Amino acid sequence: MKKTLLAKLFFFLTITSLSAQEAIFRAGQLTSPEIEGDVVTFRFYAPNAEKVEITGDFLPTEKVESPMGKVDSPGKSELTKKENGVWEFKSGKLQPELYSYSFLVDGLPATDPNNPFLIRDVASVTNIFIIEGAHADLYRVQKVPHGTVAKRWYPSDGLLMERRLTVYTPPGYESSAEKYPVLYLLHGAGGDEEAWISLGRTAQIMDNLIQQGKAKPMIVVMPNGNVIQDAAPGEGTLGFYKPQFMIPKTMDGTYEENFMEIVNFIDKNYRTVPQKSHRAIAGLSMGGFHTMHVSRFFPDTFDFIGLYSAAIMPREDATGKVYKDIEGTLKVQRDNGYKLYWIAIGKTDFLYDANQEFKKLLDGIDMSYTYVESEGGHIWRNWRVYLSQFAPQLF
Amino acid sequence: MKKTLLAKLFFFLTITSLSAQEAIFRAGQLTSPEIEGDVVTFRFYAPNAEKVEITGDFLPTEKVESPMGKVDSPGKSELTKKENGVWEFKSGKLQPELYSYSFLVDGLPATDPNNPFLIRDVASVTNIFIIEGAHADLYRVQKVPHGTVAKRWYPSDGLLMERRLTVYTPPGYESSAEKYPVLYLLHGAGGDEEAWISLGRTAQIMDNLIQQGKAKPMIVVMPNGNVIQDAAPGEGTLGFYKPQFMIPKTMDGTYEENFMEIVNFIDKNYRTVPQKSHRAIAGLSMGGFHTMHVSRFFPDTFDFIGLYSAAIMPREDATGKVYKDIEGTLKVQRDNGYKLYWIAIGKTDFLYDANQEFKKLLDGIDMSYTYVESEGGHIWRNWRVYLSQFAPQLF
Repeated sequence: MKKTLLAKLFFFLTITSLSAQEAIFRAGQLTSPEIEGDVVTFRFYAPNAEKVEITGDFLPTEKVESPMGKVDSPGKSELTKKENGVWEFKSGKLQPELYSYSFLVDGLPATDPNNPFLIRDVASVTNIFIIEGAHADLYRVQKVPHGTVAKRWYPSDGLLMERRLTVYTPPGYESSAEKYPVLYLLHGAGGDEEAWISLGRTAQIMDNLIQQGKAKPMIVVMPNGNVIQDAAPGEGTLGFYKPQFMIPKTMDGTYEENFMEIVNFIDKNYRTVPQKSHRAIAGLSMGGFHTMHVSRFFPDTFDFIGLYSAAIMPREDATGKVYKDIEGTLKVQRDNGYKLYWIAIGKTDFLYDANQEFKKLLDGIDMSYTYVESEGGHIWRNWRVYLSQFAPQLF
Repeated sequence: MKKTLLAKLFFFLTITSLSAQEAIFRAGQLTSPEIEGDVVTFRFYAPNAEKVEITGDFLPTEKVESPMGKVDSPGKSELTKKENGVWEFKSGKLQPELYSYSFLVDGLPATDPNNPFLIRDVASVTNIFIIEGAHADLYRVQKVPHGTVAKRWYPSDGLLMERRLTVYTPPGYESSAEKYPVLYLLHGAGGDEEAWISLGRTAQIMDNLIQQGKAKPMIVVMPNGNVIQDAAPGEGTLGFYKPQFMIPKTMDGTYEENFMEIVNFIDKNYRTVPQKSHRAIAGLSMGGFHTMHVSRFFPDTFDFIGLYSAAIMPREDATGKVYKDIEGTLKVQRDNGYKLYWIAIGKTDFLYDANQEFKKLLDGIDMSYTYVESEGGHIWRNWRVYLSQFAPQLF
């Protein structure tokens, strides 16, 4: 009993969580990713592999054939076999960004056992890292006042269940008596109330923008847009199951019809300014579709509307009453007035043409909007940037 | 443009996040784990592997030699190669529990690409699943009223930084004017403010116990016990880095000395009953060490004390003023009185002897306690059970 307790605990942990097996121990003892400035070295222990590759959004995209024509797919690079069964890949100089990656070991996907930071996107789990600087500094936790992130449940009379949502309240919310404006921020298909706070870095972006004086302190509400779920997979009564991209009823109007339940819950439970002038709504992809329809179905509710890579193409299965007379309700929304109708899309987004058609529809009824065209496609990198650009224009 | 939008989105997602490569697609298209009652089938796609094994706490433990003698290590089983490169393992009948597992492909650790539910324990990430029934039903999200879980930052004057903690408020907290008792729940070495809420299933356990009338509605505060961190790895200003088990200054007294900052913050910011009679403190392993020392250093603050597999052995590096005159301050705590001093330890825990010695110390000064001895060792399975047993005895 001469060894220090910590040393004993450490040994105990090592053998129980990593197992005593040498290979496992070594697999987890590398430094990966190793970030030196803007260059990253990735390492993977695989003594018997014939080929180890890395794939991720830090690599140049490759064009892949698809029913929508050629689309971007994350690139791949081979790692080089070094000593002692360790494979290595050193990146070129990377621009500041939050990147995700995974390995392919003889063609099979593997996460990095030396990087415990993972993000789930629908059913895929990948490792992440950040190259500091420029806009990526908005995604880091900085030494600034921090808002609170709460996972909270609201009663849905329309959907007959308790449902979970994520609420960001800005720094100082709890200690003041002030009333705040609200941004409703909607996820895309296959996402849920976790998407914007994890993949979207909403808390970090808002903390940093508010501290820099670039965005007003605001509440950000991130609901779950999948009306058959009460919460994200693994967080609700459906238990653990593999998340799917195509979820029934997400785009049949039920969500939009019941959206005011969420607004009313927030107005009742938080110190909001419950007025159109202090409400914004924005969403990515399917959430942009929801945003467009919610904001015109309740045409005097939101003064700020953001469509990020919005999936606003006409849909055969959009049969709900929400989707009746789209042009008519847009005209009502136009006549009621609003302060910002913001449309952002990437040049290579497969929804690019759909967004151009939507712009024509708006042009046709003299409905004003601000249009932003970015590089890249239908990716989280763009949606974080869109949020960073949209939030400063609010309230 | 005749295909439905959802089909297009689905195809797009498939090729971009899984890549077009057939092997990757197939690796992620299995059902694993497949839970049928109390039997679980695990599947892994690895056409060229020579051996695929599974390791996890659902398998019988193996004895492994260590400096502390023989200790339990998670067992292993081989998967059988089936058709089309798929390996399979069917478990025996499993008792209700939350289990974790990972694969070993030719000796190398791999997570299950078909199960996006992962839990990080220090730097290890493993997949999880639940076998329903008995006490494991406490760990599931049930159709009951749900509390709110908030990640919030408090100013630490003692540690000179903003620090993050996790706060569970019970169902009804926001809609009532009631004041609530508080349980402070401390993590072990290598853990942080995420440990109890993820590995410990605290929100689910509390929601279910409260709904069943077995525990009183209470606030549960889960602070970060690593005084050099402001937040969990990846959640604080230190950014993404590999978590370590041995973190400097976690057991040097700094945390205990500054603990009342947390209590005062909670009393100021939540509707608490700020009295000893309405305060409990409990912790696992290092958190049990912290609990023992905090509760006697502030000997008139907590009426309920819980030591779960507590690391309360004498330590050479415990030089802080908190550790002076342990017996004397315990006597003060004894004389001040308290309602419950609860000690729980597993029969095979490597801290078993240390806890017996601590009991002797308490016996020697006529300090009363309740002692519970469970099966098993130094594992989360026990700590979830201990919380489930401790919470009903509070307030």
